[in-house]
Amino acid sequence: MKDIVILYSGGMDSSVALYQYASQIRLAVSFDYGSKHNKKEIEYAALNCQRLNIEHRVVDIDFNKMGFVSSLLQSGGDIPNGHYEDDTMRSTVVPFRNGIMLSIATGIAESMDCDKILICNHAGDHAIYPDCRENFIESMSQAISYGTYNNAKILAPFTNLSKREIATIGNEVHVPFENTYSCYNGQKVHCGTCGTCTERKEALLGFDPTVYQQSL
Amino acid sequence: MKDIVILYSGGMDSSVALYQYASQIRLAVSFDYGSKHNKKEIEYAALNCQRLNIEHRVVDIDFNKMGFVSSLLQSGGDIPNGHYEDDTMRSTVVPFRNGIMLSIATGIAESMDCDKILICNHAGDHAIYPDCRENFIESMSQAISYGTYNNAKILAPFTNLSKREIATIGNEVHVPFENTYSCYNGQKVHCGTCGTCTERKEALLGFDPTVYQQSL
Repeated sequence: MKDIVILYSGGMDSSVALYQYASQIRLAVSFDYGSKHNKKEIEYAALNCQRLNIEHRVVDIDFNKMGFVSSLLQSGGDIPNGHYEDDTMRSTVVPFRNGIMLSIATGIAESMDCDKILICNHAGDHAIYPDCRENFIESMSQAISYGTYNNAKILAPFTNLSKREIATIGNEVHVPFENTYSCYNGQKVHCGTCGTCTERKEALLGFDPTVYQQSL
Repeated sequence: MKDIVILYSGGMDSSVALYQYASQIRLAVSFDYGSKHNKKEIEYAALNCQRLNIEHRVVDIDFNKMGFVSSLLQSGGDIPNGHYEDDTMRSTVVPFRNGIMLSIATGIAESMDCDKILICNHAGDHAIYPDCRENFIESMSQAISYGTYNNAKILAPFTNLSKREIATIGNEVHVPFENTYSCYNGQKVHCGTCGTCTERKEALLGFDPTVYQQSL
């Protein structure tokens, strides 16, 4: 039965879930929210959905216009380089982004009689992003259950996995990682030095098909 | 201290809160989400904010384009007449609307260092709208607290009040009810027969300045 709506960025984590749960996914939702790297990710999201014959919907919601403050957004300052868990990376937090994306996906899911919303938060995000932690996911899932007629809930299968563990699952289910995009700088080729590129390299070590600008 | 972001529709309930909490409100947020009556409400929202010298922001987010199903939306069927609590009114539910509006307001609030999000759900909404009930509000507030750096929370002062009780407070704080709009049909003059008009009349009985189409 296809009863899952997945938050699908086109990045490596949610691509692993897309391939792993493909037979249960009714709809993949990507958010074009006005970040610097968004458009590039969404191209890959569309490509993978097409390969798996999964319906793909892009939700257009511009956080810049709404007055959100984050270096990840087009209206924000420079994105810092370095490791994702560094304190400098805090400027990349988009306030309550997961709460917003989960809420919209819930409304879409209920509109099509689906009662599961899948999100790919993982253990590596916990340090910087409060809306990736287990206590947030649990209370948000409770709120979603109370707030919907079909008592929908969140699936967050990677909450306690590292990015390396997720990549290993992806390698086993043959995710074409060359068709996934992570770089926060949004250029055609991954920069290889921003927070997400640094993380990506560590996770895919040994089976990384990515071309990085920095090693060209 | 002004640390409240209020979800402000321009309807009578949130107008009462706008006047009651004016001294603590940093920003009023209205959502233009593609309903049939929305634009009219927002005109009144802007007017009341201007009178009270409160910053007003309109968030443009089209639920029709996202595939939401509801008779309240421009893409939906006819809005039923009758009392708000009737089962026929269920078609007017916009799936998880309050979850979505609260989430976006939370992101905006955190971006401007505010930690309180005020919503005007009330007891009369509980029968039809799951995302107006106390258990939803409580778990959503918990999720918002966990999911933000400033541990923001929801204020929902009308959760256990009837619309009549809210109107009575409004009358005491001199809300200009003629500058509030409730009708689900979105015409210039309140229709007087839809669910919200029926409710409005009952609530304002004795001090109702509204002109209704049906009594013209």
